[in-house]
Amino acid sequence: MSSTTTTTKKAIAIIAGVGPGTGAAVSRRFAQSYPVVLLARNPTNYQPYVEEINSAGGKAMGIATDLSSAESVSKAFREIEAEFGGGEGSQNKVTVAAAVYNASGRFVRKPFLELGVEEFMEGWDVSVKGAIIFSQQVLPLLLSHNQTSPSSDPASNLKSGNYPPTLIFTGATASIKANALMSGFACPKFAMRALSTSLAKEFAPKGVHVAHAIIDGVIDIPRTKEWLKDQPAEAKIGAEDIAEAYWGLHVQSKRGFTNEIDIRPMLEKW
Amino acid sequence: MSSTTTTTKKAIAIIAGVGPGTGAAVSRRFAQSYPVVLLARNPTNYQPYVEEINSAGGKAMGIATDLSSAESVSKAFREIEAEFGGGEGSQNKVTVAAAVYNASGRFVRKPFLELGVEEFMEGWDVSVKGAIIFSQQVLPLLLSHNQTSPSSDPASNLKSGNYPPTLIFTGATASIKANALMSGFACPKFAMRALSTSLAKEFAPKGVHVAHAIIDGVIDIPRTKEWLKDQPAEAKIGAEDIAEAYWGLHVQSKRGFTNEIDIRPMLEKW
Amino acid sequence: MSSTTTTTKKAIAIIAGVGPGTGAAVSRRFAQSYPVVLLARNPTNYQPYVEEINSAGGKAMGIATDLSSAESVSKAFREIEAEFGGGEGSQNKVTVAAAVYNASGRFVRKPFLELGVEEFMEGWDVSVKGAIIFSQQVLPLLLSHNQTSPSSDPASNLKSGNYPPTLIFTGATASIKANALMSGFACPKFAMRALSTSLAKEFAPKGVHVAHAIIDGVIDIPRTKEWLKDQPAEAKIGAEDIAEAYWGLHVQSKRGFTNEIDIRPMLEKW
Amino acid sequence: MSSTTTTTKKAIAIIAGVGPGTGAAVSRRFAQSYPVVLLARNPTNYQPYVEEINSAGGKAMGIATDLSSAESVSKAFREIEAEFGGGEGSQNKVTVAAAVYNASGRFVRKPFLELGVEEFMEGWDVSVKGAIIFSQQVLPLLLSHNQTSPSSDPASNLKSGNYPPTLIFTGATASIKANALMSGFACPKFAMRALSTSLAKEFAPKGVHVAHAIIDGVIDIPRTKEWLKDQPAEAKIGAEDIAEAYWGLHVQSKRGFTNEIDIRPMLEKW
Repeated sequence: MSSTTTTTKKAIAIIAGVGPGTGAAVSRRFAQSYPVVLLARNPTNYQPYVEEINSAGGKAMGIATDLSSAESVSKAFREIEAEFGGGEGSQNKVTVAAAVYNASGRFVRKPFLELGVEEFMEGWDVSVKGAIIFSQQVLPLLLSHNQTSPSSDPASNLKSGNYPPTLIFTGATASIKANALMSGFACPKFAMRALSTSLAKEFAPKGVHVAHAIIDGVIDIPRTKEWLKDQPAEAKIGAEDIAEAYWGLHVQSKRGFTNEIDIRPMLEKW
Repeated sequence: MSSTTTTTKKAIAIIAGVGPGTGAAVSRRFAQSYPVVLLARNPTNYQPYVEEINSAGGKAMGIATDLSSAESVSKAFREIEAEFGGGEGSQNKVTVAAAVYNASGRFVRKPFLELGVEEFMEGWDVSVKGAIIFSQQVLPLLLSHNQTSPSSDPASNLKSGNYPPTLIFTGATASIKANALMSGFACPKFAMRALSTSLAKEFAPKGVHVAHAIIDGVIDIPRTKEWLKDQPAEAKIGAEDIAEAYWGLHVQSKRGFTNEIDIRPMLEKW
Repeated sequence: MSSTTTTTKKAIAIIAGVGPGTGAAVSRRFAQSYPVVLLARNPTNYQPYVEEINSAGGKAMGIATDLSSAESVSKAFREIEAEFGGGEGSQNKVTVAAAVYNASGRFVRKPFLELGVEEFMEGWDVSVKGAIIFSQQVLPLLLSHNQTSPSSDPASNLKSGNYPPTLIFTGATASIKANALMSGFACPKFAMRALSTSLAKEFAPKGVHVAHAIIDGVIDIPRTKEWLKDQPAEAKIGAEDIAEAYWGLHVQSKRGFTNEIDIRPMLEKW
Repeated sequence: MSSTTTTTKKAIAIIAGVGPGTGAAVSRRFAQSYPVVLLARNPTNYQPYVEEINSAGGKAMGIATDLSSAESVSKAFREIEAEFGGGEGSQNKVTVAAAVYNASGRFVRKPFLELGVEEFMEGWDVSVKGAIIFSQQVLPLLLSHNQTSPSSDPASNLKSGNYPPTLIFTGATASIKANALMSGFACPKFAMRALSTSLAKEFAPKGVHVAHAIIDGVIDIPRTKEWLKDQPAEAKIGAEDIAEAYWGLHVQSKRGFTNEIDIRPMLEKW
């Protein structure tokens, strides 16, 4: 009987750093297959999508989380365990099929000598420290999920919807280009990319697929409505197209992991 | 009536450089949606897949082509036009939805001073000159295909299966790493990557999606059967997983092109 | 008369992060042309070289500095001004001809899940936060130095020993490669490289030469005496060879700045 | 007695691809320490510098060479042997202390579909095939030179002016950036960079220092006189500054090889 419970226990997806844009779109996309947990500091950033997903027949839960705080993230994971695991004392721990770290320090573009050290620290806190804290919490649950996939036949696992556990980091142009006035944004983004690559190499042999996405362009969200507005739709990135690409990474076989992709709109100059 | 003919005219996919492995798998994958043309110097390299696809209800055609010869490639495209276009004098030219350049010079690993200039030239002829010749023939047909997709609503185009025309180049580890003894293989591969990037930048604004794939690992094909044979299946790349990744690139929206991906097996050291 | 004072005022070099190895060697090299200031948290790390340089007829000064503390660094720069500037109320501010940021977080190689967030923070504090704090203090003094070089004839400036003010960051293999188990070291190093590039682009037009050095190999210092000890001398990097390369960067013309170099021993595998 | 001949035999430097600009400046710089051989297809490209160097007390020799022709290059090396070696049957072969491959295909910037395959081939012939042919001829003579340097004490070798044999390739912005319309120039340049890296890795353990220089900007030569002419001198690269950087690479110790540098003028945007 308890074994029945075990098998019906469904792996979840966690999206850290949700707001209108990539976070919302990724939540919607992964909610088609998994219960999703949405993390953001401010509940107004995830609440509309939690409601939307639940209304549409999916399962979503939001947790107000300060991703740069180990304590806050730890508390969020206890709530996740309480909701999706088997409860206190249970062997039946939650497993995570997919996790997306989409949080980012503010975009900063400023002469270096006018930039406060604390502005740098903010970027580091969210883009790097937060990414580390989140990864340390979520990797054990991704590793657990991998235990549930017999690896002897990667193709048949895929066919049964049993995809390799996946951790995706959202990067930016500044992850690979450190332009003038951009150090406040580029330093953390370079560091996050290093984190992603290092984790990809360490955890792939253990069955976890870690990937980094270089989002190179303006995402089409309410906040960027006025930008490039005399340009056609292909001048901006569709948040839903990022989500689709992330899903594409998730469903890759263990015999063909992509560890880095770039994503840009057709009309981007690069 | 002629307009009916026009609308029923189906865009095709062309795979250049077919053999057991990536070429065969990509042909099968794209044959699920398009008539496919398979090019290889030696018909024995494509014939089994042409037959397999046609037997399975798809449509495939093979053309013996020396990809490093402008004349031979040009002749192949005339045959393609004859088969899939409207015939001589017709306005109804063939259009290409997807093209994959999968041909490659031989893998060469040899002390530099023992390498003949002609060995270098072979690699260049297939990996670079051939890629240029093929691209110059196929890009006009990809551009034509783009004319058939109203770009005003990228999302609805996708929904109707009208994907942006796509040109994919198959690269290798040696496209980004030039190790000792590898110059004969790496020089052409670096050059091909430059070609892909330059074309991506030139043709994206015209609606063509150009992408480069870094295949980083041993592909699981008959020729590599004995390699890594004491290792689990995840030590090699599945050719069908490369094919799936290529298809994933093809179906991307104009609001989210990926121009470079890496693909490696879970157990690869990198 | 006061103009006499001005002209005899000599620009200095500052080396941040001194210990036996690169810091000591760079201090010695730059002391051949400039008074040098050596910064390290612990005076035992710079004291021997301060004495050595002063004994040999050079001019050196050490200041115990916690580079990750804005306050400590600020205090160090006030001491530098007091020593090398014209004193309180004077117009005669110290100028800096060359500055080297050589401090680094500890080398960390550890499974990610065993790494404490505070270990990450240490690396960040020294390699990135410290680099930012130091750069913000030293860049105005480098810019001042540039005012003293008429730029209308770069070649004649060089001939008179008036080299473009230079800021050099010491990177490592991990600045460009994020291997497994190395995230604690690679994240800050990637970030520091981004800082260097961004500053190079922002300050070059203002006459300051910023460069990043990828030190790729084991430096031959007392601490590494036992490493590679069955190998010839060319298996390790000579600290004095790094120093020579840094000097070579410093004496480059404004018509030929190098912004990144790699440095490795002849026998290094890479 | 014959040993006397041996010891007075002087190693030479060879500069392949000489014209007004980098080739001339590098020839002048290396002529300060070595007899120099200047190669160019057209003697008018080297003759003025041969005369200038010989008049100034140096030793220079020009040889009309089609670098893309194995036969022509082979003939040039026979002439070099005849001039600087011990003559037919002699054990006293010429050795090469430094070689610079500075030849390059024409700068091509053109829509891809208007570019002829033969235009691509020209770039390949000079930038890649020529680099391979030249390297295969010169590497044995660089290796010979290394035999004359006892490696047991790198520092004392340097002090005696016995620098590690060096092979330098001149690259360009297009060696690392493949922009739109630039494939004709970028493909060969990417390939040459791969060649340089592969050779660096293969020949470093044998004592030869191979390096690649990314020349990122307009060089100040007669042909570019009208370019950027409303800009200050620091908007262009000084050919003599490139030469100085190359010399700096040559005199590096075996305990500190730089394998890649970038060189750009202070006012370059990058």
